[in-house]
Amino acid sequence: MESLLKRVQGIFEREVFLSEPKGLYEPIEYTLRLGGKRIRPVMLLAANQMFGGSMEQAEAAAVGIEVFHNFTLLHDDLMDQSPLRRGKPTVYRKWNGNTAILSGDTMFALAWRYMLKVEHPRLREILNCFNETAIEVCEGQQYDMDFERESETTIAEYMMMIRLKTAVLLAGALKIGALYAGAPDEDVDHLYEYGIHLGLAFQLQDDLLDAYGDVAVFGKQTGQDIRDNKKTYLILKALEVAPMQEREELKRWFATTDCNDDEKVASVLKIYAGLNIKEKVEEAIETEFESARRHLDAIRVEEARKRPLRELTEALLGRKK
Amino acid sequence: MESLLKRVQGIFEREVFLSEPKGLYEPIEYTLRLGGKRIRPVMLLAANQMFGGSMEQAEAAAVGIEVFHNFTLLHDDLMDQSPLRRGKPTVYRKWNGNTAILSGDTMFALAWRYMLKVEHPRLREILNCFNETAIEVCEGQQYDMDFERESETTIAEYMMMIRLKTAVLLAGALKIGALYAGAPDEDVDHLYEYGIHLGLAFQLQDDLLDAYGDVAVFGKQTGQDIRDNKKTYLILKALEVAPMQEREELKRWFATTDCNDDEKVASVLKIYAGLNIKEKVEEAIETEFESARRHLDAIRVEEARKRPLRELTEALLGRKK
Repeated sequence: MESLLKRVQGIFEREVFLSEPKGLYEPIEYTLRLGGKRIRPVMLLAANQMFGGSMEQAEAAAVGIEVFHNFTLLHDDLMDQSPLRRGKPTVYRKWNGNTAILSGDTMFALAWRYMLKVEHPRLREILNCFNETAIEVCEGQQYDMDFERESETTIAEYMMMIRLKTAVLLAGALKIGALYAGAPDEDVDHLYEYGIHLGLAFQLQDDLLDAYGDVAVFGKQTGQDIRDNKKTYLILKALEVAPMQEREELKRWFATTDCNDDEKVASVLKIYAGLNIKEKVEEAIETEFESARRHLDAIRVEEARKRPLRELTEALLGRKK
Repeated sequence: MESLLKRVQGIFEREVFLSEPKGLYEPIEYTLRLGGKRIRPVMLLAANQMFGGSMEQAEAAAVGIEVFHNFTLLHDDLMDQSPLRRGKPTVYRKWNGNTAILSGDTMFALAWRYMLKVEHPRLREILNCFNETAIEVCEGQQYDMDFERESETTIAEYMMMIRLKTAVLLAGALKIGALYAGAPDEDVDHLYEYGIHLGLAFQLQDDLLDAYGDVAVFGKQTGQDIRDNKKTYLILKALEVAPMQEREELKRWFATTDCNDDEKVASVLKIYAGLNIKEKVEEAIETEFESARRHLDAIRVEEARKRPLRELTEALLGRKK
């Protein structure tokens, strides 16, 4: 896995993103040089390798997926008014809103340029997968914004939202890597479902770590989601299982912005503890993780070829624990 | 031509754009139902027909081009803070900025869904043409915003900007229509250049009509560009040819926002008259129009097949005269 990451990082270091007009391409260059874990391109190449693909063929698509992902972050940061991304000012803060819009649009088209770079017998299928994934990611972001404004969101709705917003892009990256390698349809489907459940597990773990993560490892202040009244699996689960009194108390905290933040985090965490929320979320993660594993098991390639993806899975879910 | 327009309008009436989540798709439905002249899809189908294409094959691409065009309008309206589009509130006004961003992004992906609908031996070439055009349109919008903030813009820079912002999409639509019909490369190139020069002529005429158009026909107040201090071919040409005194006077008006608008328009038009700006712009339009005609002449299909495009050209440029 390490070697795949190095390979992806190497591509991004060599690739030239700067062009004219500067006002359009400098924010793109800035965004793509911020780094990040490059999980999606690594997954795409790992899937390609698993089915004996030539990797060089799939490289352009790996870059395309990462450029697309960064385009969504760029627009999301503007919509969510997030000041920082990977510890650096977001594009709309460093430049302005219009720049974030137009440079983002251009990144979407640049992603397509990479997707179109290599001819392939199944190219139309690959491009359809990429595009339908893109549409789903947009739908996920809309549901996310809708849910933030709604008073009642169910766990089922929340899972549907994070499936669209996060999981389908992981799954799509894996599928595209497999298609480039000419994998059989049935295996492609298992790999896709593996990606979906992995993505769900990953997002639930993100929710969990916000409340219970090791600050030193996680790199963020604990309880930020609670401070921000953000809808997560934790609060939705708590509202679902809590008796009347705790439920009302949670709702009160959740509707408050002008309060002592530390008191708020402590109070909410105390209610969570009484309801065993941490354990319930860990169970949900384990369920998704198990589903992911079963789909990986079902793929008909020799076990040795699955090792890199298994490693990656454990690393992704274990790293932060 | 009328029959092609009816065909395109029919497709847009039948097509269903609404889906879930409503907050994402209602603004898309709204935008695509606002109507408009549907010039680009009509051009695409006309080009297809000229080379004996089956039209049904090219229909999805025609829809794709129009959806893409409307996506750029949606984001441009937000960036330019335009309150109205075709006499109705723009999406960011009727909903909000975030909706305009995300529904726009989704429209770009929906345009791709149409572009990917039909298999074709030259599909990758068609998709590359579509995507490179999309990138150029973004670059054109960036130059447009850059030039509005710069003090000195040359005529050459302005022509480069409107080429990217307006002309390439007309040219790209024509090229895609021709590629679907299996037209020879040389003819495709001539058709593309025809589209470029037609687009340039069309934009210059738009500039001209803002100052000299018949309000009843044009449907807009005359002199709006002068009121808005907007950079157009007219003011750039005037600054280029004016003697020192008129040049300074123009620059003064151009830097003013708090003045009597009617006095400003009258004064600027008086300077234009002294410099024969109207005639100079008409000459420039005629030059582009002639280039367009020559490229259409050079295409090796029988004259009768060119008639619809010739008609459309005259209609586009004659209608508003």
